[in-house]
Amino acid sequence: MTDQSVLIAATRTPVPAELDVAASAARRAFATTVASTSAERAAWLRAAADALDAHRDELVPLADEEAHLGTARLTGELARTTAQLRLFADAVLEGSYLEATVDHPDATTTPPRPDLRRLLRPLGPVAVFGASNFPFAFSVAGGDTASALATGCPVIVKNHPAHARLGRRTAEIVAAALADAGAPDGVFTLVEGYETGVALVQHPEIRAVGFTGSLHGGRALFDLASSRPDPIPFYGELSAVNPVLITTAALDARADELATGLAGSFTQGAGQFCTNPGLVLVPAGSAFAERLADAVGQASPVPMLTDGIASAFAAGLGALAGHAGVRVVGGTTEQQPGSGSAVVLASTATAVIADPGALLVECFGPSTLVVEYADLDEALDVVRAVGGSLTASVHAEPGEDLSRIVPVLTEVAGRVLFGGWPTGVAVSWAQQHGGPYPSSTGAHTSVGMTAMRRFQRPVAFQDAPEEVLPDELKEHNPLGIPRRVDGVLVPPVSAE
Amino acid sequence: MTDQSVLIAATRTPVPAELDVAASAARRAFATTVASTSAERAAWLRAAADALDAHRDELVPLADEEAHLGTARLTGELARTTAQLRLFADAVLEGSYLEATVDHPDATTTPPRPDLRRLLRPLGPVAVFGASNFPFAFSVAGGDTASALATGCPVIVKNHPAHARLGRRTAEIVAAALADAGAPDGVFTLVEGYETGVALVQHPEIRAVGFTGSLHGGRALFDLASSRPDPIPFYGELSAVNPVLITTAALDARADELATGLAGSFTQGAGQFCTNPGLVLVPAGSAFAERLADAVGQASPVPMLTDGIASAFAAGLGALAGHAGVRVVGGTTEQQPGSGSAVVLASTATAVIADPGALLVECFGPSTLVVEYADLDEALDVVRAVGGSLTASVHAEPGEDLSRIVPVLTEVAGRVLFGGWPTGVAVSWAQQHGGPYPSSTGAHTSVGMTAMRRFQRPVAFQDAPEEVLPDELKEHNPLGIPRRVDGVLVPPVSAE
Repeated sequence: MTDQSVLIAATRTPVPAELDVAASAARRAFATTVASTSAERAAWLRAAADALDAHRDELVPLADEEAHLGTARLTGELARTTAQLRLFADAVLEGSYLEATVDHPDATTTPPRPDLRRLLRPLGPVAVFGASNFPFAFSVAGGDTASALATGCPVIVKNHPAHARLGRRTAEIVAAALADAGAPDGVFTLVEGYETGVALVQHPEIRAVGFTGSLHGGRALFDLASSRPDPIPFYGELSAVNPVLITTAALDARADELATGLAGSFTQGAGQFCTNPGLVLVPAGSAFAERLADAVGQASPVPMLTDGIASAFAAGLGALAGHAGVRVVGGTTEQQPGSGSAVVLASTATAVIADPGALLVECFGPSTLVVEYADLDEALDVVRAVGGSLTASVHAEPGEDLSRIVPVLTEVAGRVLFGGWPTGVAVSWAQQHGGPYPSSTGAHTSVGMTAMRRFQRPVAFQDAPEEVLPDELKEHNPLGIPRRVDGVLVPPVSAE
Repeated sequence: MTDQSVLIAATRTPVPAELDVAASAARRAFATTVASTSAERAAWLRAAADALDAHRDELVPLADEEAHLGTARLTGELARTTAQLRLFADAVLEGSYLEATVDHPDATTTPPRPDLRRLLRPLGPVAVFGASNFPFAFSVAGGDTASALATGCPVIVKNHPAHARLGRRTAEIVAAALADAGAPDGVFTLVEGYETGVALVQHPEIRAVGFTGSLHGGRALFDLASSRPDPIPFYGELSAVNPVLITTAALDARADELATGLAGSFTQGAGQFCTNPGLVLVPAGSAFAERLADAVGQASPVPMLTDGIASAFAAGLGALAGHAGVRVVGGTTEQQPGSGSAVVLASTATAVIADPGALLVECFGPSTLVVEYADLDEALDVVRAVGGSLTASVHAEPGEDLSRIVPVLTEVAGRVLFGGWPTGVAVSWAQQHGGPYPSSTGAHTSVGMTAMRRFQRPVAFQDAPEEVLPDELKEHNPLGIPRRVDGVLVPPVSAE
């Protein structure tokens, strides 16, 4: 059976009264999802993945119509999205995400300890604000939705106007699949409209927010979430410059390879990646900016996600190019409406340090700022001035001493790359997508298996009768999940 | 060598300029602590514990002079505090707190996966606001300080004026012990004064705050932390009513035992516990409030922590007692200045539901509100109306069906007790001290080993050369800590 209310909400622009309906349904659904088994939720996630894969030939062209990202990229992104849903299903079944912990009574501790058993539980209904630049993977059925559903949190997604039809169709498919797989009514709803989004973050039934988008919009919603009578966590992935440091030795050894690699990374998808390498530090006098412009070649305009994004890109480029400390080395800052074409800018560490407010800004689109440094101290000062980023990268030669570089890159970023370009974010246990503010608003990741921790809170049961405990905390561990017992980690029974 | 600047800061009331000195010292210390080994930090924690134990005969009387909690309780609290420091040392050496995760490259995933290695790193300098009611365990060298230092975060403690001399002396002892054990200058500083505390939460060098105290003060500081240009996490443990539900069967079976147990719990330490059972639900017509008043007996005034706390207690009692829906069953609301004497109040579920804003308030001191319910539905409605609490408890008979009760208790609390009283918080891996707002401001615990997670953020290293990786992420796992490798949990090498 398909939940009719979900489909209605998914296909009309709701007013706040409709949001109340969705939120009440989510609250009722939570009574079921909070008590659901890991196996049930894994089945829901897999059903959603299967349904999306089955509709690939419909969804990919629809996404391309709205987002102009090309069918190859979008086919890959849909595959990534459904693989992600299935990975969360696997992780739920594995059971570590509950952090199940058993402490038996101990009269010898200070103070004496009763029987304590702890696990993580779902927070409650979660609001998800998808991104413009990933119509599948960071959107209606993306990582925030998948990780929230995996933990047992109902989800209300705010549809993104940049791909509204795709969002509605994706929601229909997901809602139907969830209902067919036995998930409760109200577990997943799409809502639309700016005002509704604002009301969503403030709605009493919402217990957390996942957001991917701009610093300006994200910070405004963060402020709303934090100033509620009952503040809720707002997990925002907002803005990043993603500095790249190229050492002298690396540039000497393989300048062409570096220029080609960087050109591919910063122009990919019209530069519309939150991990876009926006600032590249190179030794002074290396003429790397010119070499990069050559590698980019004749830049042709590429349609951007929205006219607004294209306008913002053009405006950002204009401001940078108009700065006395910046040269336009490749491409043109005269952008066509709705499109972006690759631009290589160049500056110096001195200029950047002198005016960080003007030069260290995310310019969302196919551009990068090549910054020449006199010595490593100056380069590291620029990295520090960039501050919180999703990624920071270094290109060095094998055996080079990186002992001064790595601590600084680690200080500013959530992911530190060696010899790589930051675009492309694998979905795995060890992934970290989120760094110091303003790149994100929390010390968590929005990509990878540990993204689930954002939507859980710990509960301890003290001296509970065996029969009221969740299966995962019962003495004999019927599901065989990994647990910590009396301080000692006990691996899953099926593992070695 | 003792860090002279720490001692100066610990013995004078600093102005913001002195805070800048402390914060700069903490930043410099962080450069060392972030690169320190687990073994080094474990040694620091143990040195602090040993030094505090060695000064027990000086510290306990000093604490009793200021806090009036009695030497027996304070001796136990100091032992708990030093045991806690040593437990964090053990946990740091065990290594799970780093959540070390290794994903080897895999070209078959969608998208293809590079080599990714992730662990949790310290956030940076942390501010700690200790509690009035635990001069040792939730104060200068309490759980927040211990868990922050354990992860490698320098700590700046705001001294509590209710036990300022004890705070200064404790800080001197801890600072000297840390310095002797090789911890860097600036790793631990005490500051004083209301204005300094406000400035501390807003100081650019501070990366997180641990707070235990009132809802009013805590929320004000939370708002400051959240509205910074760069918001930082504020882990506040604020306020709780801690509902207790007694079933008809339990009351029929052992009313005297329950009255005695409750009397001991709510009057302990003059009721000055954040886990004080402030509201107890009993079947209507059971005359349990009268029985409880008998169990309390002749209540004599006990000195409270501060005159302000005593005044607030008297005012809160007066407001409750003046409410048409409340009866004073035992003790008197005419309290002596500076003291609190036990008071038993009684009301009904109907009255409470009708005016939750007046009746469901934390009254910090030796009082409890016995609320009579007509049936279980009504009792659960009251629990829901109480909302976010540190604890929720049920007293039932063996074999009673708790399937409707447990979900509601779990919904409102971080710790759910069966047959126990909530005062007394064991320090262990499975402990959870923190529940839905307003009992705390984050989905984390301030007691127990997982308290460390509050002061860490994840960092992933992509394709890093072996030599730049932290030891915990090197391929051969030299420290033998538990890790997740390619999705599979690998227990520590020394464990079975």
